[in-house]
Formats: sequence, structure tokens, C-alpha cells
Amino acid sequence: MVIMSFTEADSAALVAERLAQCAGPLPAFLTALVGHIHQAIKETRPTHADWRHAIEFLTEVGHVSDHKRQEWVLLSDLFGVTALVEEINTRRPKGATPNTVRGPFYRADAPRLVSGADISLDGIGDPLLVNARVTDLDGNPVVGAKVETWQANAEGFYENQQPDLQPEFNLRGVFSTDIDGGFSYRTVRPGGYAVPCDGPVGRTLHAIGYPLRRPAHLHFTITAPGFETISTHVYDGRDPHLSQDALFGVKQELVGTFLPVGGIEGPTPVKGNCWSLDFTFIMVRAREERRSA
Amino acid sequence: MVIMSFTEADSAALVAERLAQCAGPLPAFLTALVGHIHQAIKETRPTHADWRHAIEFLTEVGHVSDHKRQEWVLLSDLFGVTALVEEINTRRPKGATPNTVRGPFYRADAPRLVSGADISLDGIGDPLLVNARVTDLDGNPVVGAKVETWQANAEGFYENQQPDLQPEFNLRGVFSTDIDGGFSYRTVRPGGYAVPCDGPVGRTLHAIGYPLRRPAHLHFTITAPGFETISTHVYDGRDPHLSQDALFGVKQELVGTFLPVGGIEGPTPVKGNCWSLDFTFIMVRAREERRSA
Repeated sequence: MVIMSFTEADSAALVAERLAQCAGPLPAFLTALVGHIHQAIKETRPTHADWRHAIEFLTEVGHVSDHKRQEWVLLSDLFGVTALVEEINTRRPKGATPNTVRGPFYRADAPRLVSGADISLDGIGDPLLVNARVTDLDGNPVVGAKVETWQANAEGFYENQQPDLQPEFNLRGVFSTDIDGGFSYRTVRPGGYAVPCDGPVGRTLHAIGYPLRRPAHLHFTITAPGFETISTHVYDGRDPHLSQDALFGVKQELVGTFLPVGGIEGPTPVKGNCWSLDFTFIMVRAREERRSA
Repeated sequence: MVIMSFTEADSAALVAERLAQCAGPLPAFLTALVGHIHQAIKETRPTHADWRHAIEFLTEVGHVSDHKRQEWVLLSDLFGVTALVEEINTRRPKGATPNTVRGPFYRADAPRLVSGADISLDGIGDPLLVNARVTDLDGNPVVGAKVETWQANAEGFYENQQPDLQPEFNLRGVFSTDIDGGFSYRTVRPGGYAVPCDGPVGRTLHAIGYPLRRPAHLHFTITAPGFETISTHVYDGRDPHLSQDALFGVKQELVGTFLPVGGIEGPTPVKGNCWSLDFTFIMVRAREERRSA
């Protein structure tokens, strides 16, 4: 019997040959992935000890990951893999608001609020007035869109990270767009933050000086019948870490201009260190509708 | 500020740019690995759901891996990564016995035995007489080499997989080569087996029909001062799965000819279904000695 000896040159081909005999959609993905991992190994030539360390790292990441803490998602996020999958799946026409990674702090059960409401339940931080509109690509208002927003507080923490320190649903709310596609609300200016560094992923990358900061941002998920759902961030254009977002979410179209204002009017007017943000979200028709058009 | 937007085209370059600012040897490895993973994703274009499944798979693999059960090693083994790291690190001159993966069943504490001893402690299986020699590349005997051998029983199980069914140290032994570089021992012919299929790695790959069988083999680790340690298998050339070893360990030089014989002589002679194997292991001088030569 002629044996196909495993050699460096044909290592990936031998695996591919086996996968080619297999069923379903998985083998094609595995063939590409394994081929590229072999290629990376041939380029970097790890020693046995290096590979043992890699296995130990994977083992450690695996042990701390569960439904509450997802170090695999963090790993995927920090190396731009999550952003790439997002990019591949929701590329939009020029002018439309792009999607970015949703992140782990979303809650589906935030309260519905009327336009103008204040989502800061503890009032801590610099007041911020958000005035926004949702339109289609031609500038027509998208009426009755559901707008979910959530954000970190001034210190960079989400309420579900600090259940003992922040009121439940602090800095979260669900709004509807009005007849002009508009919605507005009061909040506080969010703080930037670093991704968790107490697990193996953050610890390892922090040790080599890899960027782990997220510039300050507001999250939005906007849904409207007949349109592609927008799930995105609006970033604080003044944040010094804007060009080094750990999650690769920053795009020019998502940078908001936070303007200092002397005060905010309304049922509970405030004066002093206040800010305003005007922003327009631009939705595109759902793919099915675009195709049939 | 000009923002480098994350795009499909430059996704890997953006990660590489960050890693280029980092310290130590890890960034070079990560740059290659991440670049290739991005490439694999661009080629296969997974959906959000696909990527979620990948994360779920990694999470499940992580949960079952510990110091006793290593699904990461199994994953690395089954996709030829372990064999590739072995290949990269111990490529030998033509004619020398190649290394292969050691596998998880090695024990460092097996008993030292005299040449001719029987390592089958329960006597179950077809008797096999192994007659072997250890030489250098020029055919000179390597005297006093330490030869560790271990193997599965006729059913394909190692004693440390079946602590309740097999005597401790069954089918394991440590020998020394004599003045001619020779050693011999009695054992039983090993059975082939499948890698574990009760974890997420084996289960997933079994479901798509990926080869998980290991052809029957004997393990050897051979150490001698001044020589590179050999850690390898000798395969049963009659095994039907020889060309599909799940761990990619089979090489032409490692295929042994198991010959049927009518009986085996010795202090406890046997007759009937017996086998013999003659094999020569060829060691090379340790790299330092080769370099200084």
C-alpha cells in the first residue's frame, strides 16, 4: 500500500482531502480555516513549547467562558473577527448608516419612553441632549421606527455591570420616531472604558500593550418594517481613543459631534456643563425589497 | 481627526498595525494567525448565525477540556496541526526514523524490563515477538539506548483507559539496547481504535464523516546520549485504516511488517496465531553535535 506521508508541504492538502469526503456545509469552512491555520504555522514556525502554550491559553479561555462571560466573543472582537463578520453580512449602499458590533451589554427589556424623556435615572454626569432623525436614503422620514438606546455612564460602566451601584435600566430607553422621523431624549455624556482585563484574553493582550480602550459612545438599534435593522454606535468625536477602538467599530459616518451648550431647556431645565448631539440615522430598504425594486 | 474605517479589504491590516506596536514574540505569531483567519472568513463568508455556532462550539470544547481530557489537543491532532508542529520541529536527514505525535497515553513511570520479557500482563490477544535494533545513520549500533514502549491491547484500549479491566502497566515497558543495539520483547498484537467521539470535537467530526480511526500501532520513545530523542509509532502494515490515520502519524518508514509465525520460543513458548515484527530505528546525532561536526 502506498502511504501519503504527512509532510510540511502537503499538510493542508491531506486534511482538505479528508474534508472533501465529508457531508454538509461545514467541510468547506473547515478546509479554508485549517488551510490558513497551517499556513500561519508554516510562516511562524512555533516550537513544541509555543504550541503547548497556545493549547494552555485556549484551555484557560475555555474555562472562564460561559453564558455570562464570553471570552471567545472578546477574542473575536479584539482581533476584528466580529467586525469582519458584521462587515461581510451587512454591507450597505453609500450614504446609509453602517452597522457595528452590538456588544454584550444590550438588554431587550428596556422601558418604552416618550420623546424628550431623561434616561439618566441617577442624574450623575454632564447632561446631554440627543436630537436625532431617522430617514431613508432619499431623506424621507422613517415614521414610527423603534429606537432602542443604551450606553455606559460617565464612568464608563453599564447598569448591568453595576447592579448595586446604578438603578435598573439606567441609561436605557426605547423611543418611537415621530411624523418627521425624529426622536429626542435627555441623558448624560458617556465615558469611555477598557474591555475587561481580568480574564485570559484581556490579561494576555494588556501584557503586550494591545489597545483595549473603547472610545465613548451611545448604542442604537433601530427597527422599522421594510428596512434593514440598524445596530450601531454613535461615537464621541472628542474621545482621544477614537482611532483605536478595541472593537474596530468606529467609522467616519458614526462619529458624532458633541457640542458644549450653556444649558438644556425642558420640564426640568439645567444650566452649566451641558452637551448636545444632533445625528441622522439613514436606513436602507430590506434586501428583499431592494431586490424586487 | 481622520478615522481609518474598518473595511473588509483592510481588516487584517488594521489588526496587524496594532500588533506591530506591541512587545515580545507573540505579536508576530498573532499577526500571521489573525491575518489568515480573516482570510478564511473572507473566503467562506460565514453568516452571523454561522459565527455564533462557531463561538458555541469553542465554548463547548472549552468546557470539557481539563488536565485529564484535552479536546483542544484532539482538535489540533485531527486537523493535522500537531503533526505539522512536529514536522517543523524535528525534520530529520533522509534515512533517519521520523518522529510522530506522542499521543495522550504515555506514562513516564513504566517498569524497566530485561530483554525478552513479556509486557502483556494478562496474556489476552495474539502473541507478538518484537525484534528491534537501534542504529545511527551509518548502521552502527546505539548501545545502551533507553527504549520506552507502550501500546493498546487487542481491543484498542490502553491500560490507563481501563484501570478496572487491565493490570497496571499492562503493555508497557522500558528496555535497554544491548551491545549490538538490539532489544526484543514479547507482547500481543495491538488493535486499532477510534479517537474519543463522546466530546464536542469527536461528535462534530463524526457527524460529518471525518476519519477518526487510528490504525494499530506500537509506541516508542528512544533516548540515547548525544542523539535526538525518537518519539514515534510503528504501524501494523496490514491495518485497513493505514492511509487514514486520524492523527496523520503514518509514514512509509514507520510501517512495520507483522509476519504470521507458527509459534514463539522462549521461557514460556506459545504456538498458534503468533506474529513477529523486525524493525530498525535509526537515530541521528543531536543538533548541537551535528552543528559542531
